[in-house]
Amino acid sequence: MFKNYIIGVDWGTTHLRAYLCDISTSGDTHLIAVEKGLGVSKQLLSFEDSLFDCIGPWLKLYGKLPIYLCGQIGSSIGWHEAPYLPCPINPHKIKNDFLSFIVRGHKVSIIPGISCCLGDEDFDVMRGEELQILGWLKLNPTHQKGHYLLCLPGTHTKWVLIVDGEIKLFKTAMTGELFDLLSNQSILIQKDESSFNFDVFLNGATKTLNSELGAFSHSLFSVRSKQLFSKLNENNAASYLSGFLIGSDIRAAINASQWNIQSFQSIEIIGAPHLSDCFAQVLSLKNIKSRVHNVEKITLLGFSGLR
Amino acid sequence: MFKNYIIGVDWGTTHLRAYLCDISTSGDTHLIAVEKGLGVSKQLLSFEDSLFDCIGPWLKLYGKLPIYLCGQIGSSIGWHEAPYLPCPINPHKIKNDFLSFIVRGHKVSIIPGISCCLGDEDFDVMRGEELQILGWLKLNPTHQKGHYLLCLPGTHTKWVLIVDGEIKLFKTAMTGELFDLLSNQSILIQKDESSFNFDVFLNGATKTLNSELGAFSHSLFSVRSKQLFSKLNENNAASYLSGFLIGSDIRAAINASQWNIQSFQSIEIIGAPHLSDCFAQVLSLKNIKSRVHNVEKITLLGFSGLR
Repeated sequence: MFKNYIIGVDWGTTHLRAYLCDISTSGDTHLIAVEKGLGVSKQLLSFEDSLFDCIGPWLKLYGKLPIYLCGQIGSSIGWHEAPYLPCPINPHKIKNDFLSFIVRGHKVSIIPGISCCLGDEDFDVMRGEELQILGWLKLNPTHQKGHYLLCLPGTHTKWVLIVDGEIKLFKTAMTGELFDLLSNQSILIQKDESSFNFDVFLNGATKTLNSELGAFSHSLFSVRSKQLFSKLNENNAASYLSGFLIGSDIRAAINASQWNIQSFQSIEIIGAPHLSDCFAQVLSLKNIKSRVHNVEKITLLGFSGLR
Repeated sequence: MFKNYIIGVDWGTTHLRAYLCDISTSGDTHLIAVEKGLGVSKQLLSFEDSLFDCIGPWLKLYGKLPIYLCGQIGSSIGWHEAPYLPCPINPHKIKNDFLSFIVRGHKVSIIPGISCCLGDEDFDVMRGEELQILGWLKLNPTHQKGHYLLCLPGTHTKWVLIVDGEIKLFKTAMTGELFDLLSNQSILIQKDESSFNFDVFLNGATKTLNSELGAFSHSLFSVRSKQLFSKLNENNAASYLSGFLIGSDIRAAINASQWNIQSFQSIEIIGAPHLSDCFAQVLSLKNIKSRVHNVEKITLLGFSGLR
């Protein structure tokens, strides 16, 4: 009766999200339940105890189920280290390289990450996003043919070039991590913002987006100096900083030598709703179309694609 | 007998350095004693108690002396807020706008900061560096004529354009603060470096310095990914990051629209010795000559110029 149930766990650095899903034979995925927990870097218990605290009740109800883990739980700071599979690669191939082990009588499979070499001793890596890419490929059969550029914003933005259903290459921008560090611990912002100000966000984005030379190093301090001269309300400083950083990220994507951003019909954005909208709006400042996808739906499709 | 003694206090965000100096009538400055203390953001006592803990013994020995404070002590997070004087300005004019007050019977003068408007609602500010610029101008009478570009590395790098003895404009880069945040609190560096590796530093600098497009956003993550693929020893990651950030800072100075860096005979560097050498070496990668000055000597010359 529960033979189509699986447990998929997206276990990143800061969050754990466990999904109990029913995958019909037609491939449709129904979400039965969700549980949340602490990320890899925030563990108080052992990884094993944390996992079973979270999904134990489901196992009691439904017995043995396939358990898939993706994200930083498979990294050098995680539970067991899963390999990185090199690009170019069809994401379906991650199914051939699970790191599987038995714990408390249940089989747990950690999904491998993906790596790519951008030449000149330059490498890049992802863990967790490969599952969402798999989900995006399942979303529509047309995604298996042609060139696509995916943008997955988060702690680290991943820009992923897909060619005929394969991950060709990708690039990481530390936009979210920089925002966290600079908004909480730098001289730039003394006061918490009251709420997100969209106009100010776009001002910040324009600052870096339209810079011919990459204004990062010599313009970041403007976040503070504008406040000193009443050109930026201190309650809006975080909105401006967010725009500044996302503008810089998108400017780099526009200028990337690895693809021609104008050649894509739209950029496929997969991330948290507000953040995805922010990226879409800054892209639209440069007349670049984008489609924002429902990240949970894509993630569940990814887990269902592992069977 | 002590009528030529002054006390100069460089009181920044993280450090306090108090100098007792003897200024001869010929303008030569002799350092009599130095005391160190905590910066503005690290105070455990009141600013008044901290100052007198530090310089009280000198006052007991020598009586009333002129006391000059510069740096963040005059900012909104300091003791009393001194104004910013707008560019272009001859640094000697800071003598006309001391914020002076009496405390425990002694007259204390806080030196004003300097601001500049770079157009388009863009402002910049400095506090403390104006004193070193004053010292540099006193170092050699030839500095009063012609164009010079000063580079003052530190928590924030200041690039200062001097024209005929006036501060024409300047730009701030948060290079030092970014290094502190990223080396201590980001995913980039997991382990402390054992020691500075100069070759690795130059590799990092080349990465951003030679980037046509400003590689900041999409290349910063290389500090981590190179370690994962054994292209960078984790003990050298901080050296690489330092080079990466300084390269980005200098690249922006080379491309700045406000000056033509090739038009200067040499860049005048005023900062801590190791950091100054790092900037000089990266400039030399682009065949740009520089002169590294003794920062303490320049600072004392600055204080002596206040009389």
